[in-house]
Amino acid sequence: MFNVLGNFLTLSSFGESHGEAYGGVITNFPAGLELNLDEVQKDLDRRKPGQSAIVTQRKESDTVRFLSGIFDGKSTGTPIGFIVENENQRSKDYDHISGAYRPSHADYTYDQKYGIRDHRGGGKSSARETLNWVVAGSLAKQLIPNVEINAYVSSVGDIFCEKPYQALDFSKTESNIVRCPDAETAEKMIERIKEVKKEGNTIGGTITCVIKNVPAGWGEPIFNKLHAELGKAMLNINACKGFEYGSGFCGAKMTGKEHNDLFNADGTTKSNLSGGIQGGISNGMDIYFRVAFKPIATLLRPQESINKDGEIVIVEGKGRHDPCVLPRAVPIVESLAAFVLADMYMINKIRRI
Amino acid sequence: MFNVLGNFLTLSSFGESHGEAYGGVITNFPAGLELNLDEVQKDLDRRKPGQSAIVTQRKESDTVRFLSGIFDGKSTGTPIGFIVENENQRSKDYDHISGAYRPSHADYTYDQKYGIRDHRGGGKSSARETLNWVVAGSLAKQLIPNVEINAYVSSVGDIFCEKPYQALDFSKTESNIVRCPDAETAEKMIERIKEVKKEGNTIGGTITCVIKNVPAGWGEPIFNKLHAELGKAMLNINACKGFEYGSGFCGAKMTGKEHNDLFNADGTTKSNLSGGIQGGISNGMDIYFRVAFKPIATLLRPQESINKDGEIVIVEGKGRHDPCVLPRAVPIVESLAAFVLADMYMINKIRRI
Amino acid sequence: MFNVLGNFLTLSSFGESHGEAYGGVITNFPAGLELNLDEVQKDLDRRKPGQSAIVTQRKESDTVRFLSGIFDGKSTGTPIGFIVENENQRSKDYDHISGAYRPSHADYTYDQKYGIRDHRGGGKSSARETLNWVVAGSLAKQLIPNVEINAYVSSVGDIFCEKPYQALDFSKTESNIVRCPDAETAEKMIERIKEVKKEGNTIGGTITCVIKNVPAGWGEPIFNKLHAELGKAMLNINACKGFEYGSGFCGAKMTGKEHNDLFNADGTTKSNLSGGIQGGISNGMDIYFRVAFKPIATLLRPQESINKDGEIVIVEGKGRHDPCVLPRAVPIVESLAAFVLADMYMINKIRRI
Amino acid sequence: MFNVLGNFLTLSSFGESHGEAYGGVITNFPAGLELNLDEVQKDLDRRKPGQSAIVTQRKESDTVRFLSGIFDGKSTGTPIGFIVENENQRSKDYDHISGAYRPSHADYTYDQKYGIRDHRGGGKSSARETLNWVVAGSLAKQLIPNVEINAYVSSVGDIFCEKPYQALDFSKTESNIVRCPDAETAEKMIERIKEVKKEGNTIGGTITCVIKNVPAGWGEPIFNKLHAELGKAMLNINACKGFEYGSGFCGAKMTGKEHNDLFNADGTTKSNLSGGIQGGISNGMDIYFRVAFKPIATLLRPQESINKDGEIVIVEGKGRHDPCVLPRAVPIVESLAAFVLADMYMINKIRRI
Repeated sequence: MFNVLGNFLTLSSFGESHGEAYGGVITNFPAGLELNLDEVQKDLDRRKPGQSAIVTQRKESDTVRFLSGIFDGKSTGTPIGFIVENENQRSKDYDHISGAYRPSHADYTYDQKYGIRDHRGGGKSSARETLNWVVAGSLAKQLIPNVEINAYVSSVGDIFCEKPYQALDFSKTESNIVRCPDAETAEKMIERIKEVKKEGNTIGGTITCVIKNVPAGWGEPIFNKLHAELGKAMLNINACKGFEYGSGFCGAKMTGKEHNDLFNADGTTKSNLSGGIQGGISNGMDIYFRVAFKPIATLLRPQESINKDGEIVIVEGKGRHDPCVLPRAVPIVESLAAFVLADMYMINKIRRI
Repeated sequence: MFNVLGNFLTLSSFGESHGEAYGGVITNFPAGLELNLDEVQKDLDRRKPGQSAIVTQRKESDTVRFLSGIFDGKSTGTPIGFIVENENQRSKDYDHISGAYRPSHADYTYDQKYGIRDHRGGGKSSARETLNWVVAGSLAKQLIPNVEINAYVSSVGDIFCEKPYQALDFSKTESNIVRCPDAETAEKMIERIKEVKKEGNTIGGTITCVIKNVPAGWGEPIFNKLHAELGKAMLNINACKGFEYGSGFCGAKMTGKEHNDLFNADGTTKSNLSGGIQGGISNGMDIYFRVAFKPIATLLRPQESINKDGEIVIVEGKGRHDPCVLPRAVPIVESLAAFVLADMYMINKIRRI
Repeated sequence: MFNVLGNFLTLSSFGESHGEAYGGVITNFPAGLELNLDEVQKDLDRRKPGQSAIVTQRKESDTVRFLSGIFDGKSTGTPIGFIVENENQRSKDYDHISGAYRPSHADYTYDQKYGIRDHRGGGKSSARETLNWVVAGSLAKQLIPNVEINAYVSSVGDIFCEKPYQALDFSKTESNIVRCPDAETAEKMIERIKEVKKEGNTIGGTITCVIKNVPAGWGEPIFNKLHAELGKAMLNINACKGFEYGSGFCGAKMTGKEHNDLFNADGTTKSNLSGGIQGGISNGMDIYFRVAFKPIATLLRPQESINKDGEIVIVEGKGRHDPCVLPRAVPIVESLAAFVLADMYMINKIRRI
Repeated sequence: MFNVLGNFLTLSSFGESHGEAYGGVITNFPAGLELNLDEVQKDLDRRKPGQSAIVTQRKESDTVRFLSGIFDGKSTGTPIGFIVENENQRSKDYDHISGAYRPSHADYTYDQKYGIRDHRGGGKSSARETLNWVVAGSLAKQLIPNVEINAYVSSVGDIFCEKPYQALDFSKTESNIVRCPDAETAEKMIERIKEVKKEGNTIGGTITCVIKNVPAGWGEPIFNKLHAELGKAMLNINACKGFEYGSGFCGAKMTGKEHNDLFNADGTTKSNLSGGIQGGISNGMDIYFRVAFKPIATLLRPQESINKDGEIVIVEGKGRHDPCVLPRAVPIVESLAAFVLADMYMINKIRRI
């Protein structure tokens, strides 16, 4: 099965940027869980456009409506259907590109693959799909209430949050519009984003995600290692270019003597270069990973491109676009991580007699 | 479905380091393909232990035996079963760790997950599983004969192959034992591995993989983006800590103006920071990615650790181990990439009426 | 993957009898097909309540709204989302059974399985779910336009349509309210249903389905034989108790000499006891099967039952119920058959190089 | 995922009649179960050829060899690989049909589907595949030790075991070679089979399966109803033409008043026309179903047929064939039922928080 998120707990989703609605079906959510649907809407609000000066000014209420699978406030064990109606599309902002391929977008590849393409707002390739993931991930989070998942913007362009995650206070992440818990760095990042925005340009960056309180044992041993599932989920986020966990690419420069995490008597480890996962299975230590995002491809400035007939055309983003994907991607990263973890948690419950 | 490689073309595999045999079932391989089974054995030989001074000296013939799915030299369209018998296990090399957990291995997590653990050679967590992937991937490669897949060791510790892949001659990769096509760098890498080996130490590194001639259109749009499938496959390789494609983590430092790949009139792009994939779908340009491997955890020197009862014990690798996973991982990376691509190729064939 | 219809072409569906809406996501529908959505609504109308004197008088418009996956009248290759809003629930008709288990319903088993149960209209166990299948199957039918699928009521209680399907004119099926193409038998069936209805009773029956123009080659050889997929789909219809194809249970009484279908020179067969399927794969002859439905469990007359506390209670259906499931099940059988066939058609397209 | 048995607990299998070996991989078998492998061999022996005068005289030891997933006599939670080597093929018995299509076999359909066909013993279409299912099902049975599964031959041609299952002593099933627990009927059945055998003919029949001690709650509510999963598994058995459970096709003749199973105070039911399943979920009562098998298509007498070029040829079974599939199908039915039940048992364990 593919074009589905998850292995046991699954999300089948749908929706295009300028279609009627987004939505999905969450299958195999267990019965009997008291659900807080306001929390889901809150997570959606953290993702929604128009929330600050450094994100797109598009106005969408992005209100989720649950259609099934919940009775008397509790999950029934049967499929949870939901939709989020589209409201504020301005399809004519895209008329000028109906025949053109925007550079580094999916316009060309969709057309090559399907022979048909919904050009309005990128159609299915739009990152608006991620709102489905936030709904599903936010519910999934409620399945594993002890697990703490905190993502934050750890770099914008060449501005890095130099402090290790242990030195950060995650309660501060939401206190600024860029979602970096270090106030000083956050200010620099915001400045940098405003600069590129002024030029009609965009900028990339990284998000770091830290997950606490996952007990030992989650993750499958061969083709669904916990970090591989997290990595796959993150790489599916629009604009994602890379994923590393624990020591990551730095670990590739080290020797075994430096890298091995020695045990304490209680099974915890003295260091945690493993990033909380050994052999694809959680070991009870903090799980942490980093995700790289490229700069958004839509520029509010002219670029040379081609149209369907191979003729040179000039494209220029019109309307309302994000100069930097990072702030709005924070809840997406958290939600996907929650979904993956809840899925692995459920599977793990039946791995022993 | 999980614990399976692939979505349409699938591999279900089995085997433990010191069990009877490895093997697997490849399902939905299309009918009518003339198969060259010697090529599969050749790929296995590139992965096998004992092939040079810088890998483990364990002797295994690693001979694959095909049991079904092939008739008159051609695939029949029905499941291809295969086994590789284990031959040269020295289980008693592991007796000393039957109750102990080796640092940064999967011993502790398997025990936590399953409540039972085959300590001999790491049991199921052994990287010996990857021989199954080489068999399956090598067959998959024959399904997409025009696609060229070349992986090579691009760094060992802090020794990097500085040349871009375009400047390398991949026909040289097999000409040295470390599998770096740049002779000068290869020599330094080999030197470095011999150094750490002498100390009973190990070292990490990276592998770069370059894929040419994938036509536009492969990859699924939402949860099975082509790079996410490649990333997931690579992250499942033992010791893998990170994956990036195209501009990767460097791309996260750039602005959109720098990063966008402008089109030529024929649909190719002037630059290729996208790494041949846009919106999760191949665009016809070279696909390239980089995989980070940590240093192998088994050291031939004493390390403090714990046993099942939480008592401090000293563990020390005995027997025959790799000081560096990289050279033997090259065919594994290539095989997994081939499998993922063949899977996406097959699915893509039915995405249009 | 489970709780999903189909293998490659899939439907994930949701909805409860008295919830907000039904709906689903159809994934991997190929791109580029001109879709006739009015035909889908027409199929839904054949299933809907209130259409005649012998079905439930509940009034639901059952209007489907497509939310994604269609652009300019054509499928885009991306997920097709749809919903059908619930309109005419009278939840208070079910207040009296909120604590009681209706005999031969799923009330008891849902409560045992989930520990929570939506008693209103049977919740998820309601046959109203089948409207999702009609939407999906009706679209699937458009993928395989040459295939002709005709189902009809072949028995009600002990009134059987004695003519073989070859002697029937399927264009007459819709000409009477019971959907039996033989007018004389239809009249008797209608009479019988009216009788049981008058008593507050219900009655069972069978549906026969005949499929023409399936080319040879559809169906998978081992675990997804074409008749097994059809059988599974039919057995999932509410109230279904049995499935047979070709010679069916009668074939079990025969000898090989009588049963074997001898070939004509063109590959067709002189007889067709195989029912168009050999070794699980279509052979180009007519496919035909028969499905048994029990009488509906809800009686409009008092029955003794128990409640959650094991106390004896009297339950009696209130409101608007079908005395016989058969007439409305005809489009359901056809739609499910279409979905299964379209799924097998797509998979078969990639079984050869 | 398809061409796989099971949803969570899965079997991927391989093998052809005259290939090297059969075998498979059982994935997601839980860890920590003490396994009795002799029991598995015993079940295989009940299926194997040559065991009596009324089955094929082919001699195969059909010895299963487990290759992984078991350590110290216990399941490890990782994939269980196994093979059964083929030994006694006489491929030249099939030379005469290499270009011909046997009537009512899968020869024609495989050739149409794959464009390539292994004619030796039917290749992949051979019922020899079912030995894989017996291995997997026999292990699965050990996962649900309280469940009692008893299948028996309930009819051969027009000879029926008239007693209801409640009147039979299942401990007698193995006491005669046809596997009908009623001695008198068994004798008649054996006689009938010997008759048809003498004529080079074959005969069909039915198997009834009775399952006791399944607790309430197993089975999935929508597309994987317990009886649909059982039905699908049975319909995949070679030569199967129909499946009914509980009241089955007889239930289709009844009214609701007759058919409804009224409750006792303890949740059991006074009658059991439901066959232990309501709304697709077990209710704790006996599960029983009936499976129809056609007569085997291979006759030891001449039949007219065609070859690949559409020319008329005479085919006549040579060598060693079963005159009746029923006796050897009894352990196959039981094993598949066990596998389906174990799969549903595991899934059900995680349907509630």
